Amino acid sequence: MEPSSGSRDASPVVPPVAAVLPAGGSGERLGGATPKQFCAVQGRPLVSYTVRAMERVGWISDIIVVVSPENIETMKSIIEKYGHKRVMIVKGGITRHRSIFNGLKVFAENEFSNHLLQKPEVVIIHDAVRPFVEEDILSKVVMAAKEHGAAGAIRPLVSTVIASAADGCLDHSLERARYRASEMPQAFLFDIIYEAYQQCTDYDLDYGTECLHLALKYCKTNAKLVEGTADLWKVTYKRDLYAAESIIKDNLSQQVCVITNVKEAVAQVGFLLHESLKSQIKVEAISVSLSKNDSHLQNILSGQCYSFVCINDKNCVIQETQQLVDLLEKSNIALLYPVVLILVHLDISENISFSIGMEELTRIKKFAREVKKKNILVYGLLIQYKVCIS
Amino acid sequence: MEPSSGSRDASPVVPPVAAVLPAGGSGERLGGATPKQFCAVQGRPLVSYTVRAMERVGWISDIIVVVSPENIETMKSIIEKYGHKRVMIVKGGITRHRSIFNGLKVFAENEFSNHLLQKPEVVIIHDAVRPFVEEDILSKVVMAAKEHGAAGAIRPLVSTVIASAADGCLDHSLERARYRASEMPQAFLFDIIYEAYQQCTDYDLDYGTECLHLALKYCKTNAKLVEGTADLWKVTYKRDLYAAESIIKDNLSQQVCVITNVKEAVAQVGFLLHESLKSQIKVEAISVSLSKNDSHLQNILSGQCYSFVCINDKNCVIQETQQLVDLLEKSNIALLYPVVLILVHLDISENISFSIGMEELTRIKKFAREVKKKNILVYGLLIQYKVCIS
Repeated sequence: MEPSSGSRDASPVVPPVAAVLPAGGSGERLGGATPKQFCAVQGRPLVSYTVRAMERVGWISDIIVVVSPENIETMKSIIEKYGHKRVMIVKGGITRHRSIFNGLKVFAENEFSNHLLQKPEVVIIHDAVRPFVEEDILSKVVMAAKEHGAAGAIRPLVSTVIASAADGCLDHSLERARYRASEMPQAFLFDIIYEAYQQCTDYDLDYGTECLHLALKYCKTNAKLVEGTADLWKVTYKRDLYAAESIIKDNLSQQVCVITNVKEAVAQVGFLLHESLKSQIKVEAISVSLSKNDSHLQNILSGQCYSFVCINDKNCVIQETQQLVDLLEKSNIALLYPVVLILVHLDISENISFSIGMEELTRIKKFAREVKKKNILVYGLLIQYKVCIS
Repeated sequence: MEPSSGSRDASPVVPPVAAVLPAGGSGERLGGATPKQFCAVQGRPLVSYTVRAMERVGWISDIIVVVSPENIETMKSIIEKYGHKRVMIVKGGITRHRSIFNGLKVFAENEFSNHLLQKPEVVIIHDAVRPFVEEDILSKVVMAAKEHGAAGAIRPLVSTVIASAADGCLDHSLERARYRASEMPQAFLFDIIYEAYQQCTDYDLDYGTECLHLALKYCKTNAKLVEGTADLWKVTYKRDLYAAESIIKDNLSQQVCVITNVKEAVAQVGFLLHESLKSQIKVEAISVSLSKNDSHLQNILSGQCYSFVCINDKNCVIQETQQLVDLLEKSNIALLYPVVLILVHLDISENISFSIGMEELTRIKKFAREVKKKNILVYGLLIQYKVCIS
């Protein structure tokens, strides 16, 4: 198995990796009625961001979301509304460990055999309330699990950890440098973690929280620890929802997709525009004919990109844009946030003259008015420049 | 010493409590050039919120802010701009412990004797990057320190803590329920913590971070552990700044001060309005003549209140309001946020008639226009009701 960090397409030579997302928590610490994984962040439930983060990784074949019985319908409607793929909902148990165990059973037990889910070689376990997980760390824990049997992301401790005596006074404090916080994602050879859960006592299932501990206790597997980045943090308190909201807003406004579809003669100007954008924001650039069903573009559409710059030098601007609008509609991304579409028309000529006439402008204005109803905002920009032949 | 949680005035019978705020950190984990304590949150440096949280507690006599040499001027200008009182700046050392030690020396060493700071019986140590500390927890740790010699706020662990072996694999995980995260504030009998710092090795001064540990190691004092609330958390990462910003915004919009200055006959209506507001938001209600220099009002003005409702039944509305505007200006609170002032004029009469004439209205409008320049937004509301004599 070689998860390649660039590609998002499942390759047939990659043995299956599945993911189990426990999402059964009640969110007591958040102080609200809605469990944190279902709290809306920028209008979208937190769990949907986490599912999408998994879904974007092409080599993860199945995503099992484990929710408490009363939230199964909610979860179904989230999957439908946001068009999530490769996701299966499983009914959770009364504790975190029991929920994860239920998620794993899908790949092993006869009662589920009608689902025909292939048993994965490696299974990722990740919290539904850690939405900012990147392919890089997923790939690292999967590779480490393949080698060591188990692996988990860790982070430095933010506070000193102390043990208290029976009288509520300090017994001793731990030397901070020697310890780490165990975070998610974690990954396991499926057979190891499933064996651990099968061997596990009721006490462990009811009071334990740490999968790495089960793999060690029941399968003598010392998990490989992988240093993670700061964005692996878990949404626990209300302030974490505020933080998640701000991070998502930041991400949204800092990314733009540049679609270039021009004759070679003007490609250089498109390139300059692209370079200049790149110095300001995160740019995903693709050079495609929109009429082809480009898979790279599809992937961008399923991502977090809500701003597009289309560079064109033809007069069939509207037809091409219509194709992009159709793709955007199909991908549902304009459901929540306005999508911004900037049409840049490059006009090369030896004489300064408007190659787009009034009629064309009126058509573009009418088109912009139409698609605005679909939450897609179209802006036009005409760049005219003179070719000097010296 | 009996810090009473209602009063904000230092009483002469209370032995002095001082606070030391280490603010010398470089904020590496935040990933920005500005140390986190100086990052602007809603336009105001984080450290200023923390200083204010201390300053509002009347029984804290001196607040020592320890900053690195290059930030002394910045800190000076913050104190001046936000009108902080009872604050002294001390030059920090190269580590956290060395900075705290420098802060404590102010009360003990001869070189500082010209400052005439009285040695406190109890000293609070609190991070400059934990702005949401409340009087309640400060009072709890101070009382516990007086009894036990040392005390500190603790919180449940959010993640499991693990120890790694030399090969980077899991050695063992700690049982989460048996351990706690050590947070701030902490409090100590001054003589104990000062003694501990004097005894302390260079290794501890350079690599340690935990004051409770020093009190235990050098003075055999087992600190009392006090369960704190979730808002004691430390601003560590960029996401924490986002969270702090959202919490401060929330606090600002959820508090209103009702100032009642009416004849007894109409007091009942004022009371009804007040009760009805209380069901929606946090209300500080005072009943004063604005012409007197009321200390309770002064305290509210130095707090986080940016909305005022003034209930009046006289015709000298503008003169009274002018006095409030003067107080607001003096307190600098309109420097950053617009202050909202709603003037409610209660008009009791047996016949429905306007007791405020057009001339008065014009005067109020002109007044509102004037004070808007000072970032104070005045709105008027006339409530007329008929007294039925049955």
